[in-house]
Amino acid sequence: MDPSAREKIEEIIRLRKKAHSFYSKNSKVYEAFSEMERRAYSDGALPKKSKELIAIGISLATNCESCMEWHIKQAIDCGAVTDEIIEAIGVGIEMSGGPGTVAARFAMNILEFYGNLS
Amino acid sequence: MDPSAREKIEEIIRLRKKAHSFYSKNSKVYEAFSEMERRAYSDGALPKKSKELIAIGISLATNCESCMEWHIKQAIDCGAVTDEIIEAIGVGIEMSGGPGTVAARFAMNILEFYGNLS
Amino acid sequence: MDPSAREKIEEIIRLRKKAHSFYSKNSKVYEAFSEMERRAYSDGALPKKSKELIAIGISLATNCESCMEWHIKQAIDCGAVTDEIIEAIGVGIEMSGGPGTVAARFAMNILEFYGNLS
Amino acid sequence: MDPSAREKIEEIIRLRKKAHSFYSKNSKVYEAFSEMERRAYSDGALPKKSKELIAIGISLATNCESCMEWHIKQAIDCGAVTDEIIEAIGVGIEMSGGPGTVAARFAMNILEFYGNLS
Amino acid sequence: MDPSAREKIEEIIRLRKKAHSFYSKNSKVYEAFSEMERRAYSDGALPKKSKELIAIGISLATNCESCMEWHIKQAIDCGAVTDEIIEAIGVGIEMSGGPGTVAARFAMNILEFYGNLS
Amino acid sequence: MDPSAREKIEEIIRLRKKAHSFYSKNSKVYEAFSEMERRAYSDGALPKKSKELIAIGISLATNCESCMEWHIKQAIDCGAVTDEIIEAIGVGIEMSGGPGTVAARFAMNILEFYGNLS
Repeated sequence: MDPSAREKIEEIIRLRKKAHSFYSKNSKVYEAFSEMERRAYSDGALPKKSKELIAIGISLATNCESCMEWHIKQAIDCGAVTDEIIEAIGVGIEMSGGPGTVAARFAMNILEFYGNLS
Repeated sequence: MDPSAREKIEEIIRLRKKAHSFYSKNSKVYEAFSEMERRAYSDGALPKKSKELIAIGISLATNCESCMEWHIKQAIDCGAVTDEIIEAIGVGIEMSGGPGTVAARFAMNILEFYGNLS
Repeated sequence: MDPSAREKIEEIIRLRKKAHSFYSKNSKVYEAFSEMERRAYSDGALPKKSKELIAIGISLATNCESCMEWHIKQAIDCGAVTDEIIEAIGVGIEMSGGPGTVAARFAMNILEFYGNLS
Repeated sequence: MDPSAREKIEEIIRLRKKAHSFYSKNSKVYEAFSEMERRAYSDGALPKKSKELIAIGISLATNCESCMEWHIKQAIDCGAVTDEIIEAIGVGIEMSGGPGTVAARFAMNILEFYGNLS
Repeated sequence: MDPSAREKIEEIIRLRKKAHSFYSKNSKVYEAFSEMERRAYSDGALPKKSKELIAIGISLATNCESCMEWHIKQAIDCGAVTDEIIEAIGVGIEMSGGPGTVAARFAMNILEFYGNLS
Repeated sequence: MDPSAREKIEEIIRLRKKAHSFYSKNSKVYEAFSEMERRAYSDGALPKKSKELIAIGISLATNCESCMEWHIKQAIDCGAVTDEIIEAIGVGIEMSGGPGTVAARFAMNILEFYGNLS
């Protein structure tokens, strides 16, 4: 895959870890956010996989690249296959038009990064 | 339920029908949009129900009230139960914070409108 | 046309006037904004009509109802015909997907309010 | 003040209470959100008043009407005077342009509702 | 021009092509989107040039960098001159404030990239 | 600190200067925007420092990286300490959820860039 695309994804992952550690120590708001996040994505009435697919759609429509990276990885770990993720991306495109197709390009890079494009 | 909430939802439904008819006749862009919409929410690798739940999450996070009305109704018609919809709303809140909780209030009104709150 | 749609548009117009008067007296930021607005929509390299059509597209894509009311009225006053405005709305839909089609419904009401739908 | 503006604000307040009660019982995500909210607006390195003014600016720039109602009321309760709130609104306008001036109109209604416009 | 700005634009172009090919094969939603896009920007009641200028304004106000690159290039190909594009950018700034001026910087880089800054 | 993070911030600063000079000469809209900006952040009923903290919150919630860089630097120059800035970031997170925590990572890099992380 494109080296600069790979590098960008690796930077997102590195920065997320560093900042998570920083804000966990220094922000009580962030700490409560983390608890909210844990609850939002736990198995419940909906399985975690469904929730991660919802988050992929939202990330697409709001163009949050780091969110796409995180939730696509989580969805893959929950057993989501490439076609399912592409259809979640499709819902995101329907809900955001042209800018959604731009975000979908980064999502494609993430799928490639995690070996989910043949 | 609150009469003004009921009236607001009924107006959304009425206006959607009128505008759908108007733009279907007068905008070729809208016509292509409608085709995109049909494809985005058909059963595929993901069932329609999952796609509607994704759209609920996006509607929440982007505060599209008419979208919430439509996709919550579609999800109900696909068999989604109240707890599943509330968890999709929860993902939307995690992805949008305080403004998401405001959108969630309108979603609650929709659940009540369709008789899904006991 | 629908009485509640008419009433909503009339309220937007009334509130705009009242708030314009209030902030013009009480906010130096608003005063500078007004100057920026005058410059943005004056005839220049592009005619005012083209600029109003751009603003219609932005209002659609960002779902600013009052902006739609204002800029559609301005475009009509500059000689824009209904088909031109519908195509500007079409660009807005392409750039925002489903939520753009929701905003387009309000735009249709405005066209009707100003007598531009036969 | 305009009766329909007053009614809209009263509906926002009524719906917030009802939904807060509903989601507190039915959504663990919402419960964690509420904890995050409490922490975000407590006195700390910054006084609560400063934090409410920040939230007013964000509400303006993202056009969250219920957020404006809530945070303007909180700011008033913390001792913020009208001129301070108008300047927070001014920052919001600088950060969002025309749509921010539309949101500012609703903020003006809230100031009037709480008796802060002479 | 700044080498990293040039590189960023070249990456946008490369990734757009790759992703267009990928999603055209793998997503029926994307295929319908492409049809909608074709219709949105064809000559009609408004010439293509006017539609591209509308899209530039939307791209500015929503900070879609790839959209700016695409629509500025299209506008240039339709005969838009630099002053016209700068005025479309001006409408975008009026509709989005400070963040719009940030997006305008990238738009300036695109104008330079295509040789439209003397 | 991470060299690519440092480089990104330096590019933002460089591009802002270049574009400010370009648009000041070529856009009357931008010129009026600059005047609005000056007024929005001057000492008034609220001190400049409070206004910069409001802008930090908005930048966070709308993910404007260049805005974060600018307003965090301005806040530091007005005497804001790291804990105050982190609490302003906390308000931004409360108002935008997950995507706000992503923006907060870039804000952390800015604090580090200006030597405000020990």
